[in-house]
Amino acid sequence: MSVASSDRSLGDASEERCFLSTSEASALERELLDEYRFGRQQLVELYGHASAVAVTKAFPLSSLSRKQRTVLVVCGPEQNGAVGLACARHLRVFDYQPSVFCPARPADALHRDLTTQCEKMDIPFLSFLPAEVRLVDAAYGLVVDAVLGPGVRPAEAGGPCARALATLRRLSIPLVSLDVPSGWDAEAGGDSEDAVQPDVLVSLAAPKSCAGRFSGRHHFVAGRFVPEDVRRKFGLRLPKYSGTDCVAAL
Amino acid sequence: MSVASSDRSLGDASEERCFLSTSEASALERELLDEYRFGRQQLVELYGHASAVAVTKAFPLSSLSRKQRTVLVVCGPEQNGAVGLACARHLRVFDYQPSVFCPARPADALHRDLTTQCEKMDIPFLSFLPAEVRLVDAAYGLVVDAVLGPGVRPAEAGGPCARALATLRRLSIPLVSLDVPSGWDAEAGGDSEDAVQPDVLVSLAAPKSCAGRFSGRHHFVAGRFVPEDVRRKFGLRLPKYSGTDCVAAL
Repeated sequence: MSVASSDRSLGDASEERCFLSTSEASALERELLDEYRFGRQQLVELYGHASAVAVTKAFPLSSLSRKQRTVLVVCGPEQNGAVGLACARHLRVFDYQPSVFCPARPADALHRDLTTQCEKMDIPFLSFLPAEVRLVDAAYGLVVDAVLGPGVRPAEAGGPCARALATLRRLSIPLVSLDVPSGWDAEAGGDSEDAVQPDVLVSLAAPKSCAGRFSGRHHFVAGRFVPEDVRRKFGLRLPKYSGTDCVAAL
Repeated sequence: MSVASSDRSLGDASEERCFLSTSEASALERELLDEYRFGRQQLVELYGHASAVAVTKAFPLSSLSRKQRTVLVVCGPEQNGAVGLACARHLRVFDYQPSVFCPARPADALHRDLTTQCEKMDIPFLSFLPAEVRLVDAAYGLVVDAVLGPGVRPAEAGGPCARALATLRRLSIPLVSLDVPSGWDAEAGGDSEDAVQPDVLVSLAAPKSCAGRFSGRHHFVAGRFVPEDVRRKFGLRLPKYSGTDCVAAL
């Protein structure tokens, strides 16, 4: 890799940034899918695994009572929700007690297969989310928000997702958002009334612009697999991952 | 998961075993693919990532000179080879210096996509493997054998794979075999002349019977994701994985 090293001046440090705009984020994903030929299933697995690892770093099993290990993973109908389903499965493997709620179940094969994997691993699926927040606060130790990804507004996502977000916004238990907090504009941030305010943010591949306005306790990046050339092409300054860690704290 | 816990008597410890026969191993894979709806791409990614992590445990980067970080990954035309390609990519991400040799390049989409991912990450592909073993010994720090999986005999695999194995058998540098050492009978072991004798074995999902005859330095199992119910159904006694580790030493 001597070529890659000597080539580093292309992405001069002074030009590098930590965040991607919405169009850059979608260009980066297209690069991974079209140029690098990553499969959707492969990306979702990598992101879901890393998201679960991030949860274990923010809320180590050893620091939690049995009751606090119960995690409600709320999964939307797009890729963000698919990542949530893979995250729930890995959390189960890591001895957490996930339950899943899908406000709107999509019919695509990827969601269907990931759902089957969870169901067959005895992960309960809720048929509805109690509107009374104290019931949710009492039943779970934390919530994973995998409802909406970048570029999806609550109004576009439809009634069931908007209603779920209305509940998530009012919870007292810790909230972990995957990629972008649901309801946030991926660039402008989360000033809207529809936005959740997470305690933990797990940026997938690389942080989106809105992450600069995140003020919660922990911010992780789950993009260890992102090829060095892609990082350089987008002029991204990413954290150093240690050992074989798939996430890094920012 | 109280049901699962109380149900544990079904797989009574006295009946449990550490190894799978060839037919059990293929039944376990069918269970994951057909019942659990895991995708081939998803399994290969999980196995390839875990195999790379196993290499980092057996040969930590910090213990290696720059020269010793060069890894030749020899990938066959079946699933074992696909896992090798994913392993090579993750080794690159972990700062090893992999090169790949594919004795027979298959035309299926999964191999093609995994090959593209490696090529675009500047992982060199060898057009041939030097028959003179001292050249290979001199050029690489270690070799990953991802040539043949369980149930594939060298004679069936065709000339190019058999010739590659003939070279691997005579190397002095450490050899890491994925799932079963190439040329071994998955049940009877590696007494045949075609068999390689690895220093490290990484069993995928669960050890196959032949692993009982493995006498190398390290034996890892890469099957953290295997659902508990599958483990129980096959009466498998598997090692305890710690933290978020995807492999465990046996």
